[in-house]
Amino acid sequence: MLGNSLFYKHTFAFISVSLKGISQVILIENVVSGAIILLAISITSVPLGVIALLSSMIGTLIGRLGGADEAMLKQGLLGYNSVLTGLALFLFLTGSTHWIFSLVGAAIAAILTASFMHFMKNSGIPILTLPFIILTWFTLLVSYRFTAFHLSDSLVPQSLMQWELDITGEVDFTQGVFNGIGQVFFLDYTISGILLFIAVFWAEWRLGLAAFIGNAVALLTSLALGGEYSLIFLGLYGYNAILTNIAVSVVFNSKRHPFSFITGGIAACMTVPLAASINTWLLPYGLPALTMPFVLSTWVFLSARKILPRV
Amino acid sequence: MLGNSLFYKHTFAFISVSLKGISQVILIENVVSGAIILLAISITSVPLGVIALLSSMIGTLIGRLGGADEAMLKQGLLGYNSVLTGLALFLFLTGSTHWIFSLVGAAIAAILTASFMHFMKNSGIPILTLPFIILTWFTLLVSYRFTAFHLSDSLVPQSLMQWELDITGEVDFTQGVFNGIGQVFFLDYTISGILLFIAVFWAEWRLGLAAFIGNAVALLTSLALGGEYSLIFLGLYGYNAILTNIAVSVVFNSKRHPFSFITGGIAACMTVPLAASINTWLLPYGLPALTMPFVLSTWVFLSARKILPRV
Amino acid sequence: MLGNSLFYKHTFAFISVSLKGISQVILIENVVSGAIILLAISITSVPLGVIALLSSMIGTLIGRLGGADEAMLKQGLLGYNSVLTGLALFLFLTGSTHWIFSLVGAAIAAILTASFMHFMKNSGIPILTLPFIILTWFTLLVSYRFTAFHLSDSLVPQSLMQWELDITGEVDFTQGVFNGIGQVFFLDYTISGILLFIAVFWAEWRLGLAAFIGNAVALLTSLALGGEYSLIFLGLYGYNAILTNIAVSVVFNSKRHPFSFITGGIAACMTVPLAASINTWLLPYGLPALTMPFVLSTWVFLSARKILPRV
Repeated sequence: MLGNSLFYKHTFAFISVSLKGISQVILIENVVSGAIILLAISITSVPLGVIALLSSMIGTLIGRLGGADEAMLKQGLLGYNSVLTGLALFLFLTGSTHWIFSLVGAAIAAILTASFMHFMKNSGIPILTLPFIILTWFTLLVSYRFTAFHLSDSLVPQSLMQWELDITGEVDFTQGVFNGIGQVFFLDYTISGILLFIAVFWAEWRLGLAAFIGNAVALLTSLALGGEYSLIFLGLYGYNAILTNIAVSVVFNSKRHPFSFITGGIAACMTVPLAASINTWLLPYGLPALTMPFVLSTWVFLSARKILPRV
Repeated sequence: MLGNSLFYKHTFAFISVSLKGISQVILIENVVSGAIILLAISITSVPLGVIALLSSMIGTLIGRLGGADEAMLKQGLLGYNSVLTGLALFLFLTGSTHWIFSLVGAAIAAILTASFMHFMKNSGIPILTLPFIILTWFTLLVSYRFTAFHLSDSLVPQSLMQWELDITGEVDFTQGVFNGIGQVFFLDYTISGILLFIAVFWAEWRLGLAAFIGNAVALLTSLALGGEYSLIFLGLYGYNAILTNIAVSVVFNSKRHPFSFITGGIAACMTVPLAASINTWLLPYGLPALTMPFVLSTWVFLSARKILPRV
Repeated sequence: MLGNSLFYKHTFAFISVSLKGISQVILIENVVSGAIILLAISITSVPLGVIALLSSMIGTLIGRLGGADEAMLKQGLLGYNSVLTGLALFLFLTGSTHWIFSLVGAAIAAILTASFMHFMKNSGIPILTLPFIILTWFTLLVSYRFTAFHLSDSLVPQSLMQWELDITGEVDFTQGVFNGIGQVFFLDYTISGILLFIAVFWAEWRLGLAAFIGNAVALLTSLALGGEYSLIFLGLYGYNAILTNIAVSVVFNSKRHPFSFITGGIAACMTVPLAASINTWLLPYGLPALTMPFVLSTWVFLSARKILPRV
């Protein structure tokens, strides 16, 4: 009986940490938020929800087996890159075996997370989602060389020489508001977006507000600069701004200077041209920008703050 | 009255620092040299001169508002990347609003400068002009995705598969001697080049000599290796060598081993194949190499010196 | 007489260190192994053997002249990147003067080795063969801009848009077993491969076993994933796995956890998709992956071990 209750306790603790791993994707450490996010993913696609939970578990497990620091593990920090990698590989690879690559990818993401943590330790700057980005880019390109990998038709290499910009498309602000946050988890379903906002507000109202403002800033910036409507209202300029504003204005902003909230907005704004630029760099390879704009913009502002403390 | 004189004092100090920001582009901290350089830019194009001065002011202002270290600010170290970014975006973007992007770019360059300073602090290696290079490359590629950005016709993506090398062109050594230093500021006007040499010699004869030798080394190397005459005599293989020789032989050479001057020459020499290589890497994106050859060559030799002290 | 014997002693010491430089290519510090490797290269091509020895000498000489730490020099650590660079430039450049570029490259490789050592010092992670890789990639691309450089016909830029995967080819397991190790030195001659295995086993049986297992893991992985037979049996998926398994399981594995040998195998396994991916990244430039998969996989696992000590 005692053994049984211990088993339940451990299982419960493990699931808690795995849900935190899911919430850490949006820089939140909160079991309930993690559960709401898992629901948001699952109502878009149940298999995707399963992959998200399993990926987080795998990441955490690798961390535990590898002997990671307990405090770090409990925060879900070994899980979020695995979650994103699992989701991305499940969606961007096809064929009957893509779920295997997806879960193996989740395992490698945990190793890569540890690796990047070591390399960036001295800088005092968080690794964010870089392990997921690098791993996903590299894995997707593998498909050109091995028959076992099947790339989704949505990823097509293009030449910059033949590129023509056509920004026309449908205007839909409801979509624009809720798809931005949805795209953090590759979702473009309005109800999922609403659930994700609830998950963020549940954790802390400041985070929810930062998410909302980040998205609004991105919508306005991308419209003002004349971006493609099809991308803007799918939320593809929004998700990086949301993450960046949460990171720069709230999560990694211990001093809370009054000016630092403006900095967060500027950093969110910067993800828009960054996304455009990264998409251009990746055009010949047909790769998606993923959360690279968020990582770069957040790194720039967090590190600049070490030299310019009032930023 | 007192307030008035204080105002003049502050304005004068601010302009001094901004001129130092301009001179720091060629690794010099000297108000007069900065003023001569500003003149050299302005006689080529008055708007370009205005952009240079405003950009340096903006960079310095961001540094001050952000709370940068006073000593660093006074040396003009928050200005030079802004100057180069302002000039580059003004020249490589077109359309009626390019000056806005140019000045916004100058502001972001200061943030990026602070960011890179933090990341490279532990290495003991200077960031040089990397913030300008990265920011300009990223910004120019944004133009493929937003209608508000208009790229200059001079920047055309090309495929390496269709690339044909044709080195023929006019031989003009006068141009070759004075355009090299002019190209540091994107100028190809002989009198501007002469003024720039004067600015460097004014600061220190050693710097002037290093600039001259760096350019000569680059001319000889690029001719010996069989480079394109059109690039060589426009000074496009020279400006990186000038900056590199100044950096490796004089500015960052505190010990002044007799052999270290030869190292400077070798480092200058290395910028020539580096420029060729970087141009090839960037061909599919139609981007210019900017001062990347200078940054890479200088980094290699300054860091090698830490392990090989006699280099 | 005394002077004469001193001369012989110094010459002997210099040649010993140069042979160690050759053996360090496969992470071994052993004069005899170096000599056997030199033999393996020379029976494939005598000029290639001469280049290998001269390159190692040049690297060591630059290290000595530059004032490198004596202990580091004696281990041959200033030589191995020069050896690889010399070989690669000799093979991938053509024309009557390619041996000059090859030896100049060997000299620059030593400078680059010192540079990278400085930048990575604080990370506690070895630089491996990164200087060779970066230098070779940059040098090969120079050929598109200077008539003095002639690129081998085997290196052709291709567009990912036109890429068609065709994995058919001849199956030859004998080749597969011995070419893997041969490709570390760009060799595909079976007897050279056998000699290289002897060189590794001579140094330590554990290293030989790790080499054999690394290669076997790569063969199985690349066949299971459906790779191109023409590459697999030429050993082009094997050499990185061999180096990685030697590095992760033996050389940089001071604690020798039982699980760490499995980690070595997984790291070796990872070089296979990494090679595929890097080849895809480089396709538009027509560059070979060289030992980049080894460097990346080894870095990931060695650095992950600092956070996950049981890996």
